[in-house]
Amino acid sequence: MGNPSPGYSLTLRVETPASITVTSELAAAVGAAGGSVTALDVVESTHVGMVVDVSCNTSDAEHGERIRSSLDGLEGVEVRKVSDRTFLMHLGGKLEVNPKVALRNRDDLSRAYTPGVARVCQAIAANKDDARRLTVKRNTIAVVTDGSAVLGLGNIGPEAALPVMEGKAALFKQFAGVDAWPVCLDTQDIEEIIQVVKAIAPVYGGVNLEDIAAPRCFEIERRLRDELDIPVFHDDQHGTAIVTLAALKNALKVVGKKIEDVHIVVSGVGAAGHAIIQLLIASGARNIVACGRQGAVHQGQDHTDPHRIWLAENTNQDNFDGTLHEAMTGADVFIGVSAPNVLEEQHIEAMADDAIVFAMANPDPEVDPIAAGRHAAVVATGRSDFPNQINNVLAFPGFFRGLLDAHVSDITDPMLVAAAEAIANRVSDEELHPGFIIPSVFDPRVAGDVAAAVVNAAQSN
Amino acid sequence: MGNPSPGYSLTLRVETPASITVTSELAAAVGAAGGSVTALDVVESTHVGMVVDVSCNTSDAEHGERIRSSLDGLEGVEVRKVSDRTFLMHLGGKLEVNPKVALRNRDDLSRAYTPGVARVCQAIAANKDDARRLTVKRNTIAVVTDGSAVLGLGNIGPEAALPVMEGKAALFKQFAGVDAWPVCLDTQDIEEIIQVVKAIAPVYGGVNLEDIAAPRCFEIERRLRDELDIPVFHDDQHGTAIVTLAALKNALKVVGKKIEDVHIVVSGVGAAGHAIIQLLIASGARNIVACGRQGAVHQGQDHTDPHRIWLAENTNQDNFDGTLHEAMTGADVFIGVSAPNVLEEQHIEAMADDAIVFAMANPDPEVDPIAAGRHAAVVATGRSDFPNQINNVLAFPGFFRGLLDAHVSDITDPMLVAAAEAIANRVSDEELHPGFIIPSVFDPRVAGDVAAAVVNAAQSN
Repeated sequence: MGNPSPGYSLTLRVETPASITVTSELAAAVGAAGGSVTALDVVESTHVGMVVDVSCNTSDAEHGERIRSSLDGLEGVEVRKVSDRTFLMHLGGKLEVNPKVALRNRDDLSRAYTPGVARVCQAIAANKDDARRLTVKRNTIAVVTDGSAVLGLGNIGPEAALPVMEGKAALFKQFAGVDAWPVCLDTQDIEEIIQVVKAIAPVYGGVNLEDIAAPRCFEIERRLRDELDIPVFHDDQHGTAIVTLAALKNALKVVGKKIEDVHIVVSGVGAAGHAIIQLLIASGARNIVACGRQGAVHQGQDHTDPHRIWLAENTNQDNFDGTLHEAMTGADVFIGVSAPNVLEEQHIEAMADDAIVFAMANPDPEVDPIAAGRHAAVVATGRSDFPNQINNVLAFPGFFRGLLDAHVSDITDPMLVAAAEAIANRVSDEELHPGFIIPSVFDPRVAGDVAAAVVNAAQSN
Repeated sequence: MGNPSPGYSLTLRVETPASITVTSELAAAVGAAGGSVTALDVVESTHVGMVVDVSCNTSDAEHGERIRSSLDGLEGVEVRKVSDRTFLMHLGGKLEVNPKVALRNRDDLSRAYTPGVARVCQAIAANKDDARRLTVKRNTIAVVTDGSAVLGLGNIGPEAALPVMEGKAALFKQFAGVDAWPVCLDTQDIEEIIQVVKAIAPVYGGVNLEDIAAPRCFEIERRLRDELDIPVFHDDQHGTAIVTLAALKNALKVVGKKIEDVHIVVSGVGAAGHAIIQLLIASGARNIVACGRQGAVHQGQDHTDPHRIWLAENTNQDNFDGTLHEAMTGADVFIGVSAPNVLEEQHIEAMADDAIVFAMANPDPEVDPIAAGRHAAVVATGRSDFPNQINNVLAFPGFFRGLLDAHVSDITDPMLVAAAEAIANRVSDEELHPGFIIPSVFDPRVAGDVAAAVVNAAQSN
């Protein structure tokens, strides 16, 4: 069982006897069942009894049931109703589309709609680029998924993917003022996805691909980049790569090693692993071993997938042929974007001195971060409940802010590297230490820094 | 030259000498050039001179130039800059996408995004219908165009159509709280449009087709209605038909005639004309002559288009074979959704006593409404500067509000008729007269009435 989390927070409405001690008894009962109380609100109170809303974090459905039973077991207490606060928050969806202009009277209507709008249409018909100035294309991107690789949930389809895309769109707006709209496609055919995204592109200034399974995502991204005149970014690849590089730059500073010199093991050769390796190489890394389920990728294997062939040709110069566990011996850096618990404490112990471990599988990392911390100098995960959370939210909002502001049509490696540097530089030399290599996702300055770095990189192209 | 319109409103920034009479001189100069001043704002004022923003309505670009010259011609006055207020209003587009939930801290993030969102995704994966409850699908529709028949501007393409679709989306929100998103397609191929709309449908609770040329629009609507489980509505057809029927019901009350008895001439057999005729027949009309560019549609012509064949079979029982002008003689009702100035005053004079004329071509009606008013008992147009404006804004926001609220998957004729009755009933018997057969587009009660009527019709299906 995991820790109680605000992502699984319940509100239990209970009837209780009228008593001055009842709320502390309720809190104690929740605590005894392992829950963590976040609020106690008396909703009604008469001389015969009270109604109290008990809000608490739990770890899963079974845990919620135990807390309910614990409260029901108290003398005279009855649980009337259990509400799941996460579901309540999602009722009706998390986004709305609002007019930026008032439509109060005929004058407003005749400017924003007919007849005035006709002149704006004619201006764009005469010069299509004006759509970037006079329409939502100026500030709007599509968040596109086929629902095939959503979070750790797998191929759950477009409807079930929508709450994630809505959340992503909300983050774009909240952190960087970018209007983002969810596009959840009822197809998983590569050609059809490409065709549909091209067909809807006139409304958008950029495309953020999201939670599309590998290797399909590579082809879709490559083709759309070729065939569209707006930037196309697969966040699971490049967003992750940017933030990983940012964290690595600072972690290397902490341990006093150089990217050119370190021996890096990457566990996971899907979308994220591939993009991380590409960006590490673009940043000067020379010694990388990529491990999939069959161990280290090396030359001489029978690869047919062009991405595996690229990996075999561009990593593992020593042509190491062995398992992930074997690859760990003497490594300086471990980067995991694979699966829970693929490593034991002993594998971290076998790494070089001052090792760096990024165990980013979610929600359960590749290795227990506490065990890893007994041997490695720097440990980071994807989780918010350990230090050094490597979270794409640090990258994608500001990155697209910069792309839109600079009217970028193609994303380049220098833009990705510049974004990583901007994130890394947000941690000052005074702040930098093994438990703080990456800024908080709520640091309000990060998105602006990333946007400025992207604009700058675009302009010096 | 048309009348000065707020849809073509300019703000001229002028430098003037310092004088107490200067603003009245500026206003007089604008008036002398035929402009209508809407605001005079002194921006700077020193002892040597002033800077004044003169806002005025004009009728077109040439008229704007004349007003500029008129101001420039004043002693000591210089126009620095002319801003077009319609363009200013469109800068950056007219819509934004806002989070409905706050994302202030980790607790918010863990409910709206990972890890909490995963449980919502799983609930929808287990029961796809939950998307109507837990996502934006609950309240969101797509406004879909291929840019092939935008306003009166023709085939101007998807980018140039976007300002209209944004305006439409703004109206949906403003009048009925419906979140609407523009989908401007970079294809005009029927099969591809159908395929793309089906692919993006998981996010939407309805589809509003807009400004798609006939006859393509018929096939696209029919196929999407068959193949999607959400309602599909072509506003240029059914929105226009609803509002026309509403206006006709009240106009017939004014003149004391019955829909079963009247002789109706419809000019225009495109998307709107076709839908109007269908709805009139569904409401009991028995004597309709539909006229296209070649005159009355009748049996015995060589029709290959199935829509023309339907018209020939379902209208014009007397098999009248003649021109629009000839058809007008003795007609009780004229409904024009065709082209400017296809009729002269004499053709209205030739109609039956107590004639009804709806001349809805925009911006210039089928007949001069003032000339028509000399002979007809009731005259309506699509314009806001004459009485009786027949405007789709009265129908589409409330209609979709009802469709979403009732979880409708298919639109039926009884829903269209109920919507028309709701609009017509908004004009009370006391208010009803020849100059007021239809409520104002700004009557805040109309959308709610229409929504309730649609819900009611859906439930009695």
